[in-house]
Amino acid sequence: MAVYTEIPDEELEAFIASYDVGELLSCKGIAEGVENSNFLIHTGKGAYILTLYEKRVDPADLPFFIGLMQHLSEQGVNCPLPVTDREGRTLRELAGRPAALITFLEGIWIRRPDPGHCAEMGRAMARMHLAAENFGQRRDNALSVTGWRPLFESARAGADTVSAGLGAEIDKELAALEARWPQGLPQGVIHADLFPDNVFFLHDKISGIIDFYFACNDLLAYDIAICLNAWCFEIDISFNITKARAMLRGYNSVRPLEPGEFDALPLLARGAALRFLLTRLYDWHNTADGALVRPKDPGEYLKRLRFHRSVKSATEYGLDRH
Amino acid sequence: MAVYTEIPDEELEAFIASYDVGELLSCKGIAEGVENSNFLIHTGKGAYILTLYEKRVDPADLPFFIGLMQHLSEQGVNCPLPVTDREGRTLRELAGRPAALITFLEGIWIRRPDPGHCAEMGRAMARMHLAAENFGQRRDNALSVTGWRPLFESARAGADTVSAGLGAEIDKELAALEARWPQGLPQGVIHADLFPDNVFFLHDKISGIIDFYFACNDLLAYDIAICLNAWCFEIDISFNITKARAMLRGYNSVRPLEPGEFDALPLLARGAALRFLLTRLYDWHNTADGALVRPKDPGEYLKRLRFHRSVKSATEYGLDRH
Repeated sequence: MAVYTEIPDEELEAFIASYDVGELLSCKGIAEGVENSNFLIHTGKGAYILTLYEKRVDPADLPFFIGLMQHLSEQGVNCPLPVTDREGRTLRELAGRPAALITFLEGIWIRRPDPGHCAEMGRAMARMHLAAENFGQRRDNALSVTGWRPLFESARAGADTVSAGLGAEIDKELAALEARWPQGLPQGVIHADLFPDNVFFLHDKISGIIDFYFACNDLLAYDIAICLNAWCFEIDISFNITKARAMLRGYNSVRPLEPGEFDALPLLARGAALRFLLTRLYDWHNTADGALVRPKDPGEYLKRLRFHRSVKSATEYGLDRH
Repeated sequence: MAVYTEIPDEELEAFIASYDVGELLSCKGIAEGVENSNFLIHTGKGAYILTLYEKRVDPADLPFFIGLMQHLSEQGVNCPLPVTDREGRTLRELAGRPAALITFLEGIWIRRPDPGHCAEMGRAMARMHLAAENFGQRRDNALSVTGWRPLFESARAGADTVSAGLGAEIDKELAALEARWPQGLPQGVIHADLFPDNVFFLHDKISGIIDFYFACNDLLAYDIAICLNAWCFEIDISFNITKARAMLRGYNSVRPLEPGEFDALPLLARGAALRFLLTRLYDWHNTADGALVRPKDPGEYLKRLRFHRSVKSATEYGLDRH
């Protein structure tokens, strides 16, 4: 939950007045999102999200994120559309921060997704991958395999305080992933953070996908691997194959997986688990006392990682090889 | 900023469906309010606030708060109206907490009120006091003069760590206030927490007063004393007589102050400053590490208290005695 920046009254009024959205009626800081400050704005013309980009977002990446949302919206993906101000700008500054006004998407994120939600999410992810194919910009994934070792080095000191032997386990896992990370699989723009809180539903259909601030170019199947971790485990971190099967079938029905992608899924899923384990480990030891966001338990991703390491073949995720 | 309780998906759906408000479209935890969990809800019929009452609110007090909002709304005060469900109930339970759905009020709270805002607030407070005159319920103020000493005893140990000699200063102040607290002044229902973040404006007019969860029966002039503290100091805790004059004139134009109320203002303002000093002192030493709400600096209210102690007559607040 996060509102890091207070907006002075006059600045907010003037900011909203620079868009053709009617008069400012209300502005509430919302307790979701970890990276940025988000406000739900009501104006005479409807509801919007105002995002102030905080220090974890590199301003140089913002044109990619904003452009991607515009592109996906144009392609019919239900995602926030950055609003253009009277001077034609989508990326602005407010309260000393880069800022954007984007359309508000109605919908509820599902705390406990069922297989039907997973199937719907799989289809939507595949549609998003296809819709992004002709997006002209590119952004490398700083949190993919080559980025993990430096991240680990910065978080290593605390690893064994989370769990004895964790440092050595990660070291070994990293070496294995670096040696075996797949080459030559289909690439494209991935969301890279498609957790349930970033997917809104209405009447069991997806009404919106939000939070494109980790989007980047990477293996498309790596996005699926992230979702295997994010959607297909129960609260006790037991793997739910029914949800995984539903998600993979949903994805496959829109964009059929290539055999190489299918085969790589267990390794990619280990990588995805390690990626979230590492960032959580880093945050666990680098979150200031009194911070507004509680760091999340890295241990949950260690359990996921160990599960995926035990997987011999992607068929154990519930989908047959084609 | 606060969302303390997560609401399970199905419970939220069923809860909203039990009201005649149309379908649930979205639900965002909002990062305002310290005592309770608040969600901004969009439905087919508009916007609402869903409040889950957390442990600092005594459930036995909820009928008073809910009833007061209903009463004030009926009297034309712009305040949230508790929505009645299909079975005629306004007070419900959700996610194991007492809960209420109330109407959403558009408007912006003013971070830096100017004298015009203070005048408007003074008038609105007086109208609220008059509107509450025939409200049938009663709730004693646990945070008035008789409640301060026990609160101080529970927070005393930490006082001197905030500021050397603070314990002794509070002790002396408490004794003075207990001895001289006024008797016989007009009583009624007061808001008791009318800080700028609880007053919404649109076009420089008040569009709503919210957060009645400290409302109680007490001296009406004590509410004014709270507002002298809450609205009439600058960020550096210098007193702004122009704002105080505007607020007092505004109040007086709707409900003329009695001479005894006028004379008591400096003492009441000391009491109000002490009340917030004590609760902040308590929170300062009793907020768990990792809590979602940062405790506020008690020192700001010590400065206010010392200012009011230096005031010889209420004329120093900018209003002449009548």
